[in-house]
Amino acid sequence: MPTLAEITAVFDAAYPPATAEPWDAVGLVCGDPAAEVGRVLFAVDPVDAVIDEALEWGADLLVTHHPLLLKAVNGVPATNFKGRTVHRLISAGCALLTAHTNADVARPGVSDALALALGLTVAGPILPLRGEADGLRGLGRFGTLPEPEPLGAFAERVAASLPRTSAGVRVSGDLDRPVRTVAVCGGAGDDRELLAAVRAAGADAYVTADLRHHPAAEAMEAARFGGGPALVDVAHFASEWPWLPVAAALLAGGTVETRVSTLVTDPWTAHLL
Amino acid sequence: MPTLAEITAVFDAAYPPATAEPWDAVGLVCGDPAAEVGRVLFAVDPVDAVIDEALEWGADLLVTHHPLLLKAVNGVPATNFKGRTVHRLISAGCALLTAHTNADVARPGVSDALALALGLTVAGPILPLRGEADGLRGLGRFGTLPEPEPLGAFAERVAASLPRTSAGVRVSGDLDRPVRTVAVCGGAGDDRELLAAVRAAGADAYVTADLRHHPAAEAMEAARFGGGPALVDVAHFASEWPWLPVAAALLAGGTVETRVSTLVTDPWTAHLL
Amino acid sequence: MPTLAEITAVFDAAYPPATAEPWDAVGLVCGDPAAEVGRVLFAVDPVDAVIDEALEWGADLLVTHHPLLLKAVNGVPATNFKGRTVHRLISAGCALLTAHTNADVARPGVSDALALALGLTVAGPILPLRGEADGLRGLGRFGTLPEPEPLGAFAERVAASLPRTSAGVRVSGDLDRPVRTVAVCGGAGDDRELLAAVRAAGADAYVTADLRHHPAAEAMEAARFGGGPALVDVAHFASEWPWLPVAAALLAGGTVETRVSTLVTDPWTAHLL
Amino acid sequence: MPTLAEITAVFDAAYPPATAEPWDAVGLVCGDPAAEVGRVLFAVDPVDAVIDEALEWGADLLVTHHPLLLKAVNGVPATNFKGRTVHRLISAGCALLTAHTNADVARPGVSDALALALGLTVAGPILPLRGEADGLRGLGRFGTLPEPEPLGAFAERVAASLPRTSAGVRVSGDLDRPVRTVAVCGGAGDDRELLAAVRAAGADAYVTADLRHHPAAEAMEAARFGGGPALVDVAHFASEWPWLPVAAALLAGGTVETRVSTLVTDPWTAHLL
Amino acid sequence: MPTLAEITAVFDAAYPPATAEPWDAVGLVCGDPAAEVGRVLFAVDPVDAVIDEALEWGADLLVTHHPLLLKAVNGVPATNFKGRTVHRLISAGCALLTAHTNADVARPGVSDALALALGLTVAGPILPLRGEADGLRGLGRFGTLPEPEPLGAFAERVAASLPRTSAGVRVSGDLDRPVRTVAVCGGAGDDRELLAAVRAAGADAYVTADLRHHPAAEAMEAARFGGGPALVDVAHFASEWPWLPVAAALLAGGTVETRVSTLVTDPWTAHLL
Amino acid sequence: MPTLAEITAVFDAAYPPATAEPWDAVGLVCGDPAAEVGRVLFAVDPVDAVIDEALEWGADLLVTHHPLLLKAVNGVPATNFKGRTVHRLISAGCALLTAHTNADVARPGVSDALALALGLTVAGPILPLRGEADGLRGLGRFGTLPEPEPLGAFAERVAASLPRTSAGVRVSGDLDRPVRTVAVCGGAGDDRELLAAVRAAGADAYVTADLRHHPAAEAMEAARFGGGPALVDVAHFASEWPWLPVAAALLAGGTVETRVSTLVTDPWTAHLL
Repeated sequence: MPTLAEITAVFDAAYPPATAEPWDAVGLVCGDPAAEVGRVLFAVDPVDAVIDEALEWGADLLVTHHPLLLKAVNGVPATNFKGRTVHRLISAGCALLTAHTNADVARPGVSDALALALGLTVAGPILPLRGEADGLRGLGRFGTLPEPEPLGAFAERVAASLPRTSAGVRVSGDLDRPVRTVAVCGGAGDDRELLAAVRAAGADAYVTADLRHHPAAEAMEAARFGGGPALVDVAHFASEWPWLPVAAALLAGGTVETRVSTLVTDPWTAHLL
Repeated sequence: MPTLAEITAVFDAAYPPATAEPWDAVGLVCGDPAAEVGRVLFAVDPVDAVIDEALEWGADLLVTHHPLLLKAVNGVPATNFKGRTVHRLISAGCALLTAHTNADVARPGVSDALALALGLTVAGPILPLRGEADGLRGLGRFGTLPEPEPLGAFAERVAASLPRTSAGVRVSGDLDRPVRTVAVCGGAGDDRELLAAVRAAGADAYVTADLRHHPAAEAMEAARFGGGPALVDVAHFASEWPWLPVAAALLAGGTVETRVSTLVTDPWTAHLL
Repeated sequence: MPTLAEITAVFDAAYPPATAEPWDAVGLVCGDPAAEVGRVLFAVDPVDAVIDEALEWGADLLVTHHPLLLKAVNGVPATNFKGRTVHRLISAGCALLTAHTNADVARPGVSDALALALGLTVAGPILPLRGEADGLRGLGRFGTLPEPEPLGAFAERVAASLPRTSAGVRVSGDLDRPVRTVAVCGGAGDDRELLAAVRAAGADAYVTADLRHHPAAEAMEAARFGGGPALVDVAHFASEWPWLPVAAALLAGGTVETRVSTLVTDPWTAHLL
Repeated sequence: MPTLAEITAVFDAAYPPATAEPWDAVGLVCGDPAAEVGRVLFAVDPVDAVIDEALEWGADLLVTHHPLLLKAVNGVPATNFKGRTVHRLISAGCALLTAHTNADVARPGVSDALALALGLTVAGPILPLRGEADGLRGLGRFGTLPEPEPLGAFAERVAASLPRTSAGVRVSGDLDRPVRTVAVCGGAGDDRELLAAVRAAGADAYVTADLRHHPAAEAMEAARFGGGPALVDVAHFASEWPWLPVAAALLAGGTVETRVSTLVTDPWTAHLL
Repeated sequence: MPTLAEITAVFDAAYPPATAEPWDAVGLVCGDPAAEVGRVLFAVDPVDAVIDEALEWGADLLVTHHPLLLKAVNGVPATNFKGRTVHRLISAGCALLTAHTNADVARPGVSDALALALGLTVAGPILPLRGEADGLRGLGRFGTLPEPEPLGAFAERVAASLPRTSAGVRVSGDLDRPVRTVAVCGGAGDDRELLAAVRAAGADAYVTADLRHHPAAEAMEAARFGGGPALVDVAHFASEWPWLPVAAALLAGGTVETRVSTLVTDPWTAHLL
Repeated sequence: MPTLAEITAVFDAAYPPATAEPWDAVGLVCGDPAAEVGRVLFAVDPVDAVIDEALEWGADLLVTHHPLLLKAVNGVPATNFKGRTVHRLISAGCALLTAHTNADVARPGVSDALALALGLTVAGPILPLRGEADGLRGLGRFGTLPEPEPLGAFAERVAASLPRTSAGVRVSGDLDRPVRTVAVCGGAGDDRELLAAVRAAGADAYVTADLRHHPAAEAMEAARFGGGPALVDVAHFASEWPWLPVAAALLAGGTVETRVSTLVTDPWTAHLL
């Protein structure tokens, strides 16, 4: 069986930690690099239900997209759910590895998987990594549909292509508007710089998550004044889940058993109109 | 007819500008203090459709909750929608006044109106203003329902009490959980400090808007570990609209004609499950 | 008639906004890019008397050297003279365009016009723009008189060459000292870096405005210790006025009517010895 | 004969160093506290000509208003005029003491002496020291003339009351405007906060030094819009010189010989209209 | 048996976490608050040899003075000695609790124990906690010997009273100088503010650890010029060890078994002259 | 006789001031560049006893490694030992020149002299200067012994090779461990970056000064976990003294008389075990 250090090296090669955002926290959260790894579980969030699944299945390693300890800590006592998670994992001998913004900007990365799920042919990143001449890696992706389709049909495609969540899909724009070029960004994508780049590129629609009132309303007013994309807002979890099987495939062909969690970790459990 | 300066003084007394957050931009955006004011329109957002309504109706003053120029500018040329809005208003002789976080923390303020709409008896703010001994003013409100009811019924009450929007209401928590004490915060309420205070107070549910994945998911994990509120997420616009008639009532009994806009300025225009 | 956008493009080409200092505020302050422009007035300061002149003459555009809104604002209500100026201009359909430090560093720019007025042959900037290989653009100018002349005669030349102001011209240095190489800087020029560069270059005299006690006194002490220029202090307005006809000439040959304001906007209206 | 430490204590009592601005550098620049002091010279600026006067007269101490080393240094080599000044003073056994913003805010202080020279009865400071209940100390002074007089006559009074300098006195405002209440500030007084406080207090005129174009022009525009003081700009040196005999009087009655330098250290040596 | 939460409460009462320095990291590093605690080991440093001792003895809790994770972390993988320590402790069910600067400033605290070991009667802290009226708590302690003794004898007393370490005790000052009043500070004490306070108080000697060349040399030069304490530098470990039995005594009388480690964790293992 | 400016130029060429750390203060502290220099004394610290030696010998220049005025000052009054030192030097006509971190990083520099004294063949710097392609200059040095020897023997070599001080040499590590490659850093060397580079390079031992408990203890724990150097801590003074004759040799062959002070300026005057 490979060691944890060997498995970690595979992910570090695919998602180099140095490409993560400066504020991010990627890499090993716990685990002994010399330990042997036979079973690896993949999930979006290191929440309690996912830890249950990992420990019940006997995973030696849990790989998640979201960091458990994004805010740095001076201790991991079991006085809160984060410390308890660390205690549960260490006591059970299960390591935890995070690939977050390093997986976002990689090629292929989180937004490539999202674009693929929607049937888009990817052209390149929305915000290329600084200092890279070829401009292949970066945040978000631009892509093209094989055929133009009305925004209404495109939104149905989005809803049908991603894991179903309680809150569904929100749309802003004229449902008859034709959509051909699309920008996608897995996870929260209402950053001012992202929205400006999507608009500058002339995309017909932008699919992302966690769009708040002010960025979304400003984008729609700007679009009314001088053009801009329709917006399609999906669950944060749903936008990133398509990456899990891609990450798991990195271990294919070896002796390690992998499993992709299908637990829905979107926090919303009910929805009313 | 009163002058704009006299009308402004009424709002400054009810919503003192000095109580606004340091990053906020409240007060007059345009208008001549000596101009006479006969008609005042109230709306949540100074978007183009609202400006249309104001100018078509012949408003002398538009009062909005959201600032047009939150980010300070060195000019207002009509090269973007914000500058064009200023040109349209000045050319038509219509002033624009913002009452934002000063209206949030006032008593009664934006969250009082939201609590009232939901049938809550208000106890006090979630985060009292610093340096105020009586603790009456501040961000958000705690309140109590006359009778406990299951979370499912409470969520239906929320949906039925606020302006209907495309995206509806999202809920996180056990729908059978009884709800009696409720925290509400008009507008975006996923700030770490707000969530911590709501949890510390032991509220059964928290109604607010713009809840993103990470704060919501962390709150639900923390609740699973050591208790905490159910979450009810509504449209940002819908959470603040109930304040408009309250603000309009400040001018009641005078010679000024008032009108509350019923345009839905939530950016989401369609929703799919 | 050309549009405002077309006229703005002419000035942006001559005085690229990207070359302005980071703290500066250049470009359009108000105006609709689609409006037609028939008459353009040029002035140093956007003060009330200049606005009167613009509106009485029927100007469609006022071009000034000094910004109206150097300090960014969150609104332009007519509760102060700056907001009133914006209201007067928008109501009258007159745009306002600022070319400030971008006009200072351009070639030809504000200090070239000042040097020309004094009869100097320009060699190059005092502080070249960073990152420009040819060193042609930048702040201030070094120049040479055709013949050396005593400082006293040179000061009389300065007084006679620029618009007359109440406060006149101040001189520091031995009036018999010969002057051949001269540094000039339109506007306030007592910045430590400018003074150091003038001294390092061995100029015989430095003509600028707004020289305060401490920089001037330190420069004269340093000159006594190890050599340095005589100082000639003129009115800020007078040092920049010569640029106005140069800027107006950018529109020559077109259909636009131009006019250079001769109002003296130096604040000093009387002088006593 | 008293020691330098004893003389220093007299000035520290009258002008407590703790009341100086945080950016200022007051107190001893050089000198041995145990040295005996027989002769003390007072001057505004520690320039070379003043050092000559001190050493020729045999001064043991030079007291100046302006600091020699406002910018802190890591050495005092005689490679520039400041280090040479320190070498000259130490070699000759002459100490140097600065009383700058601590003398400005004291009561009586620099602006009291200026007000007295102009015949004003002092009311209080323009900007009281923070945290002082009685509000007696602070920057600048408000005062009253015995009788109102036109601005023109007042300006002549200013010119006649202060040491004559080459550049004279500059005035902004209607010369027939009556002047009764006057604000004065010795030294550079075009700080935004000072100008705002003078305007808020409704003073008829403001006498200070080093007024630059932008603050002066903005003040006059604001005055045109909503009232404000006339401006009277004098030489920085002239505005502070009246304090010298007041400071010298602190040593009266002792055994120390004092002398007030009458060298004009204003940098401007000629003036042309 | 008490729970870890109950034991933690005892230490939090004696050494309130809120009194720790802002940069410090005190409290639980790992451990489950619901776990039962039968054995508690006390040590200065959480080094590997101390972990060995804790685990071999079967400790349920290790209390150390120095934090394991002073620099906050985003994970505790066993890829370095700190993460391995966390894994060892969690796997063995042993909690780790730090009382650092909160134990320093407490009364009695770390420097009280050091003073006691040296036979001093304590007067009060060197740097009292800000905002405490009684001035009883704070960093370091002043104390008095029953009888004055020469510095040489005092240094021998210090060496004899503290745990012996390889590098011994360093002394700066005249060995015949009488010592009566003494300042002590457990741990690194060459902070500029501490040294200034010790000097201002007129102490005869200052006992602390980790004194570097520049602070020590400057203090001795200052002492030569105007008086100041002799310096006695001991091993950091030795200066803090006397506090361990005091901390252990907080659990006396209960059912918990305590043990004070006598491992020398000073890093120096040999010394040459 | 050469002038001070000529002598200064020799040191500036060998130790360019621009290579000093940004926080450092190198170059002339006092002295007249035109003065003639006949005698130059070299010492580590500008303490009072060294000034005595300089003045008694009639030195015209004192060159020290440590700055007198590292913290910038606004005056040099003789109210403290630093100002008194400046007065003594200027009155006696003796200049003071500092070569500190510029001498540390030079080639040959302070750590080269230390390495030479220990019999090491130097390979290169521990931390090369940024932006230098050849990597020859920088902080600290790596070197090699002609033959491996046990750590105990190496420590004896260190003690025998450097000036003897009261406190001697401290060692951390197994005395039988073989030592071949050695890192040295004159002066305080417990900076995190230095220690990490020494460890990464795989050196057998690290000789430096002012090693405090936490860096030293962490280094030894890290070494126990994954390898790392033994530590040898010497007096700060002793580690830098070997550079003095090297610096003096820069003036060899000229008319200037040089002398290297043998005063021990280590602050520790006694030591007890």
